[in-house]
Amino acid sequence: MRVGYQGEPGAYSEIAAERVGPPVAHRSFEAVFEGVAAGAVEVGALPLENSLAGSVHRNYDLLLRYPVTIVGETVVRIDHCVLGLPGATVEGARHVRSHPQALAQCEAWFARRPHLGPVAAYDTAGAAREVAEARDPAVLAIASRKAAQTYGLEILEEDVATAAGNHTRFAYIAARERPLPALPTVPPGKVSIAFTVPHTRGSLFRALAAFALRDINLQKIESRPWLERPFEYLFYLDFDDTEPPEIAERAVEQLREFAGEVRWLGRYGRVPEAGPA
Amino acid sequence: MRVGYQGEPGAYSEIAAERVGPPVAHRSFEAVFEGVAAGAVEVGALPLENSLAGSVHRNYDLLLRYPVTIVGETVVRIDHCVLGLPGATVEGARHVRSHPQALAQCEAWFARRPHLGPVAAYDTAGAAREVAEARDPAVLAIASRKAAQTYGLEILEEDVATAAGNHTRFAYIAARERPLPALPTVPPGKVSIAFTVPHTRGSLFRALAAFALRDINLQKIESRPWLERPFEYLFYLDFDDTEPPEIAERAVEQLREFAGEVRWLGRYGRVPEAGPA
Repeated sequence: MRVGYQGEPGAYSEIAAERVGPPVAHRSFEAVFEGVAAGAVEVGALPLENSLAGSVHRNYDLLLRYPVTIVGETVVRIDHCVLGLPGATVEGARHVRSHPQALAQCEAWFARRPHLGPVAAYDTAGAAREVAEARDPAVLAIASRKAAQTYGLEILEEDVATAAGNHTRFAYIAARERPLPALPTVPPGKVSIAFTVPHTRGSLFRALAAFALRDINLQKIESRPWLERPFEYLFYLDFDDTEPPEIAERAVEQLREFAGEVRWLGRYGRVPEAGPA
Repeated sequence: MRVGYQGEPGAYSEIAAERVGPPVAHRSFEAVFEGVAAGAVEVGALPLENSLAGSVHRNYDLLLRYPVTIVGETVVRIDHCVLGLPGATVEGARHVRSHPQALAQCEAWFARRPHLGPVAAYDTAGAAREVAEARDPAVLAIASRKAAQTYGLEILEEDVATAAGNHTRFAYIAARERPLPALPTVPPGKVSIAFTVPHTRGSLFRALAAFALRDINLQKIESRPWLERPFEYLFYLDFDDTEPPEIAERAVEQLREFAGEVRWLGRYGRVPEAGPA
């Protein structure tokens, strides 16, 4: 079961991908959706939200546009490490390459090391690859532990991000019309939906009654700023799957009475981290 | 009234800042909060959400941590343009520098121009500055129209992003203990709060009743993944201000009975775009 992800080998997305099968690098999120829809890969692993940067609206947009369904989820800890060539040291280095967001997340670390200049790279794994290729011990990268293995670099420092608790939640997607591959998920299950409600007072409250009346536990709710359609809201909702499963389906049926459009995005479990990080 | 923003001159954040006063560049979001709290600048302009990339959780975190309040908001259209030295052309260029997120947002444009290699930069305005400094007409930048003016570059192409409707919403913040500066806001007013609810069935529904019972129109709701405190949820809520204003205050009082913590983040209006973009 091949698993498409955005980025290059050593990317955090590759960590999510390889938890369920051999990872296949893609240039963009859209290319992953295309690959899954066309059957070039059976599964795609896509970031949906990061604990510091928020939801990746772009991937929610693509979820609504492509004939795919969510078949699982997993959480990857973002453990920014400082990587260098074998023998390189932080003291002897001059530059550190990484994605600007990763550089910004390690700002306090840079502030204590004024001799180091941050240099922007297209992504964290690409920064590690460039450091390995350039063979200059004065240039380091900030990337995942995985990127160190991938490109034969040494981990000079671990967990250099300023804020703790940096995690990204990934969804595994599969084509809707093909039999779903069995992922190594564990309970409890979850259901994800997207729905619109008219922009009127109390409309969300009436919509949520469908879940409150059935004692269904919500896991995530988010309204989407939708500037093109100012009189309607788009909501993303995740809720605990129900026992029996028909309860969840009945809640969504009731929701349809109070919502504009309702899209069932998937019913799925969580793929745990395999062994030590 | 000086207005702190993150980034360098020509950044999209500077466009938000200068709508209310002379902009002052800061290195990081945290530096803007520090500057406002210490009185080095009277106001800060901070991105809270982007229509493609989602909410900037980091700034919500800082809003909760610093003694500041939201005193206004504004929406900036992200109009990625291709910039070059006077006389440069897209056909004659080889490289295009920008922030990786901006490069990714212009992927379709790059796909149609395979002779151009994207090059990562720390931010869009910095890419424009580098192009102006390097004086090599074969290197272009993707940045705002404003960055073209700032660095004396020509706009070779406009609106090159793949997806339309790319907007960022900025909050203006001021120190809580100082008299609030009067911003050029227009109605309708808005109230922003953050609150926690216990992770139990129906808890959000009961919390939202405080607003539904008073016919208060919600503008944004978002639950925050909070991995450190798995038994509590953090919500961000924006709602239309009420007439009379006491109704909003009574709703928040009722909310306090059903919520863990409630933080009033601000009551404010919108600063419109001044004249043509």
